[in-house]
Amino acid sequence: MNVTVGRCTRHYRTVAFDARKNAVRLVDQRLLPHKFQIVATRNFLETARAIHEMIVRGAGAIGATAAYGLAQGVRAFRGRDLEKLSLHVDSVYQTLQAARPTAVDPVNAMNEVRSRMSQGKTVAEQQALALTAAEEFANDDVRHCEAIGRQGEPLIQDGMRILTHCNAGWLAFVDVGTATAPLYAAQAEGRKFHVFCDETRPRSQGATLTAWELAQQGIAHEVIADNAAGHLIQRGEIDLVIVGSDRTLGRTGEVANKIGTYTKAVLAERHNIPFYVAIPLSTIDWKLSSGRDIPIEERDESEVLGAWGAVARSKLQGAGPRFGRRVYVLVANPTSGVRNPGFDVTPPELITGIITPAGIFKPKELWANRRKLGYRE
Amino acid sequence: MNVTVGRCTRHYRTVAFDARKNAVRLVDQRLLPHKFQIVATRNFLETARAIHEMIVRGAGAIGATAAYGLAQGVRAFRGRDLEKLSLHVDSVYQTLQAARPTAVDPVNAMNEVRSRMSQGKTVAEQQALALTAAEEFANDDVRHCEAIGRQGEPLIQDGMRILTHCNAGWLAFVDVGTATAPLYAAQAEGRKFHVFCDETRPRSQGATLTAWELAQQGIAHEVIADNAAGHLIQRGEIDLVIVGSDRTLGRTGEVANKIGTYTKAVLAERHNIPFYVAIPLSTIDWKLSSGRDIPIEERDESEVLGAWGAVARSKLQGAGPRFGRRVYVLVANPTSGVRNPGFDVTPPELITGIITPAGIFKPKELWANRRKLGYRE
Repeated sequence: MNVTVGRCTRHYRTVAFDARKNAVRLVDQRLLPHKFQIVATRNFLETARAIHEMIVRGAGAIGATAAYGLAQGVRAFRGRDLEKLSLHVDSVYQTLQAARPTAVDPVNAMNEVRSRMSQGKTVAEQQALALTAAEEFANDDVRHCEAIGRQGEPLIQDGMRILTHCNAGWLAFVDVGTATAPLYAAQAEGRKFHVFCDETRPRSQGATLTAWELAQQGIAHEVIADNAAGHLIQRGEIDLVIVGSDRTLGRTGEVANKIGTYTKAVLAERHNIPFYVAIPLSTIDWKLSSGRDIPIEERDESEVLGAWGAVARSKLQGAGPRFGRRVYVLVANPTSGVRNPGFDVTPPELITGIITPAGIFKPKELWANRRKLGYRE
Repeated sequence: MNVTVGRCTRHYRTVAFDARKNAVRLVDQRLLPHKFQIVATRNFLETARAIHEMIVRGAGAIGATAAYGLAQGVRAFRGRDLEKLSLHVDSVYQTLQAARPTAVDPVNAMNEVRSRMSQGKTVAEQQALALTAAEEFANDDVRHCEAIGRQGEPLIQDGMRILTHCNAGWLAFVDVGTATAPLYAAQAEGRKFHVFCDETRPRSQGATLTAWELAQQGIAHEVIADNAAGHLIQRGEIDLVIVGSDRTLGRTGEVANKIGTYTKAVLAERHNIPFYVAIPLSTIDWKLSSGRDIPIEERDESEVLGAWGAVARSKLQGAGPRFGRRVYVLVANPTSGVRNPGFDVTPPELITGIITPAGIFKPKELWANRRKLGYRE
């Protein structure tokens, strides 16, 4: 999407490849929204570290980063021995996988690259094929998000006020995003609407990432405390809710997503407001048969006890940047315990529709449409 | 309630009076939970400033502070002329009222003090009566909260898991608090239970004040992000919700309270969990006939865009305090707009009962019981 730095507006992808320098170029998400900076990793070890340190996060984005990282490692290989290259590839693969061991997207992405490059008959051919495969993986990610945008765009009417939660935007993918895709598509059609971004404590991805994205794209929006959504819905100030998902069960239509999603779905249902979930096909889990079986990660207590932010500098200091270094501040009582579940599960009866690249489905209709939705026996 | 500083545990009231020094002693709530400090204001001007700067906040607490501040001003008067004293009292009254112009508690409290002291026939008599009246106002506040505790205590059973929102604890009153009163009473009966404190963004009074209070009283508790309450309720991990109120409509049973209260009430009703509101009689508004007429204050955007906290110091620094100076950090995207409603209104059908010093009532029964509840034509 477009990003304006100073007077200059340019198109960026969250993840891109510089073939001349053999470098993966990443938007450094740890610094947003206070600083926009591109990090170029010079070798696959640096790429693995960027994944591990969450310079890049989000399912689609880390998948593409791993695909590029594998190609980067392959292209750095010197020699003509295909067997030695194969051993090298194993080591690169394992290093990139270990950077985020529980994530499934890097594994799927790297398997595609490895299977494709194996068709090459020389080292040079395999190196060229690895990059081609990684580029195609990234382009497919963008195409899937664009398809979600086309499917969901008719839902976004002129004058609507839309609530979203957390960040399922272009920063979580290679470009466009999922929950944001219908918004960007509707904007491209010239429609005007207003977005409320839930702050999304404890990690505040709505206030930091989604709000920054929408500001860059010039979409009217306001940040709200997570507590305020109920009041706005009650007063008739929200017309539609749209969120992403970390895992959607194909057999039941249950949706796991960032903590707080269930609450918004309950509020939306009470006030008869449509509640949509936007997902790429890779998010559908065809195996589990109950949302109770989805593991709910209990995250670190420091997230709830405090917040990361930039120290506000006095305006009197003049010229320099308005915001200083990022620090962690302790907000809560430090001797208190914490419960910090990272996700919750929304049942299908609270979900109006699931927006996929292949169409919009009722949650309970996913299984009946499984062929269309990429299910393999 | 009891506060432990270092090795020493002592009983404190949020607001108290030192007659020898003619000083109002206040727990400095701006520094909690990272520092416990008593501020002693030396004259009524300093007391007014303490109200204005929110060293003291909460309905009962600022009422008592204003009552003591008026007595403090009266007692500092030198001379024997009752007419001059009367002019002086007007000026003290106006100064204290202007410190928080929209609050109703300081006005009610000071009216009581002024009416009582007017029975004195000399300056010395009036000065003595002013202090007696202020002390009685503060003692009544404590007695009302204790009565709420007695009424609500049977609701708190052994092993219960209780959710609360914001701070309606002893820090908001002279002592004991309202939503916390049944908890403290049940604890005194030897019952064991567990409290979940909603963080209560954007001002985080749950994470800072309520969590600190419960820690001081040794009540088992955990802080949660506001987003997590829905998940815990859905999974059956909460048995009861209890909150305070800023204004309860005697005619309709609608409850205005900190933003986010409505959301918890909706979640509780969906999962058949009792939802109680604890209030002193002074909170009941007998005039308004619709919750839509309650003005919802739109607060400053800085509350949503960032957070106040203490910079965490490295443990390597050893001896010194673990937490450094308090700073404001910007969390959200600074170019985004903000909606920041301070309160919401919960309809009577979501409320199981309203716990008052005079008994527990269904919200719709308040009007029928208005004589018992202090209604005056």
